[in-house]
Amino acid sequence: MRFTSEQRLADGVRERTFTLGEIPGLLWTPTSTSAPAPLILLGHPGGLRRMYPRLVARAEGCVAQGFAAATIELPGSGDRPASAAAEQARADLRRSLAAGEPVADEVVDRLVLPLVDKAVPEWRAALDALLALPEVGGPVGYAGGVISIGVRLALVEPRIVAALLFAGSFVPRTIVEEARRVTVPLHVLLQWDDEGNDRQMALDLFDAFGSAEKTLHANMGGHTGVPHFEGEPANRFFARHLR
Amino acid sequence: MRFTSEQRLADGVRERTFTLGEIPGLLWTPTSTSAPAPLILLGHPGGLRRMYPRLVARAEGCVAQGFAAATIELPGSGDRPASAAAEQARADLRRSLAAGEPVADEVVDRLVLPLVDKAVPEWRAALDALLALPEVGGPVGYAGGVISIGVRLALVEPRIVAALLFAGSFVPRTIVEEARRVTVPLHVLLQWDDEGNDRQMALDLFDAFGSAEKTLHANMGGHTGVPHFEGEPANRFFARHLR
Repeated sequence: MRFTSEQRLADGVRERTFTLGEIPGLLWTPTSTSAPAPLILLGHPGGLRRMYPRLVARAEGCVAQGFAAATIELPGSGDRPASAAAEQARADLRRSLAAGEPVADEVVDRLVLPLVDKAVPEWRAALDALLALPEVGGPVGYAGGVISIGVRLALVEPRIVAALLFAGSFVPRTIVEEARRVTVPLHVLLQWDDEGNDRQMALDLFDAFGSAEKTLHANMGGHTGVPHFEGEPANRFFARHLR
Repeated sequence: MRFTSEQRLADGVRERTFTLGEIPGLLWTPTSTSAPAPLILLGHPGGLRRMYPRLVARAEGCVAQGFAAATIELPGSGDRPASAAAEQARADLRRSLAAGEPVADEVVDRLVLPLVDKAVPEWRAALDALLALPEVGGPVGYAGGVISIGVRLALVEPRIVAALLFAGSFVPRTIVEEARRVTVPLHVLLQWDDEGNDRQMALDLFDAFGSAEKTLHANMGGHTGVPHFEGEPANRFFARHLR
């Protein structure tokens, strides 16, 4: 991991950009730390530059709670080389949606599974590098989408002890099966009236999780309209499990 | 309304029992109040004596937030005279459940609609009496079950400006239709793995509500196992809407 820039944001937040091999990433830590800060990995749908305003807002919230936050670019997004197979799957998905047809399972599989298979080892490698920093400590949380990446990470990465997941559509059956074996505490946010979202799929996935503590918070307000008042229970979720 | 007893509980809570005609009730207020406290009506499934430990815990939480809390006995429950028709409907319901058969809509209607029709005017009369007390003020919230009573009250009682509802089964279609016309902010608690509960019914009812702000919080833990961490978002819900 190589740091490429650094700046101080308001309210005691230190932001650094880094690269991990070819993968760009961002790390936010408290400017004044005595002990290593527990880390929250911020998931997102890909495209760090486009997602930056929302990511930095979430990161500032994490740091205000005494956590470090970090994220990396997804395979095929932002400045990373596109995958021809993923582009083809995305085109097939768009064609089905435009025609008002159900999206075939094999299209979802082609779109999501290679992404999960490639991204999850990258996030785990990032975790190795981040936890080697003196100012960052365990335990680790994951917060955000892509929900399929979050499910796989929660299943295979023992350093992740709690996950806050944003419900999304197009979850492969393989991932739903993996969800049955997830046991870490979960906090799932669902936008009830999100037209781009398959609500029943999200409810079925929530039902599938094997976790003894799982909470679903559903709200109105469309895809990006998670109400401000959901910030507090999300903070408390991580405070309970990362301290 | 006639007060029949009074005691001081711990943490600055004054508890009074009262009767409103033949209906017993309980009122909890802060022992030290300068301004009238906004009122939260505590819904329950009937049987004040049996429900008392849980009701007093919820009431103490309300008073700790600066609210007054009150409840009354339901028709046919506790010391109030039983209704032969309601007993018959309950026996029919038990027979269906024991036989593993679906419960007929007409049984649900016979069980719930007369209860709602009788209880709601009683709660409104209690509201008239409670709001006439100098230490109790508006606006008013409703918190708890029976969810069908909560729906009807939220629809017809303009002094109720926010409702926290406990999801339950056996909601008549009439009530689901009424829910479409409910517009006050709602916070719905659903126990996901409650075997005595029809989860799909609860999700359909949540979907039906006409409110622009509606939130569903679903958790594991069985019928009475709402996690402690749901107390804080519930308090904040009423703080947002009753102040």
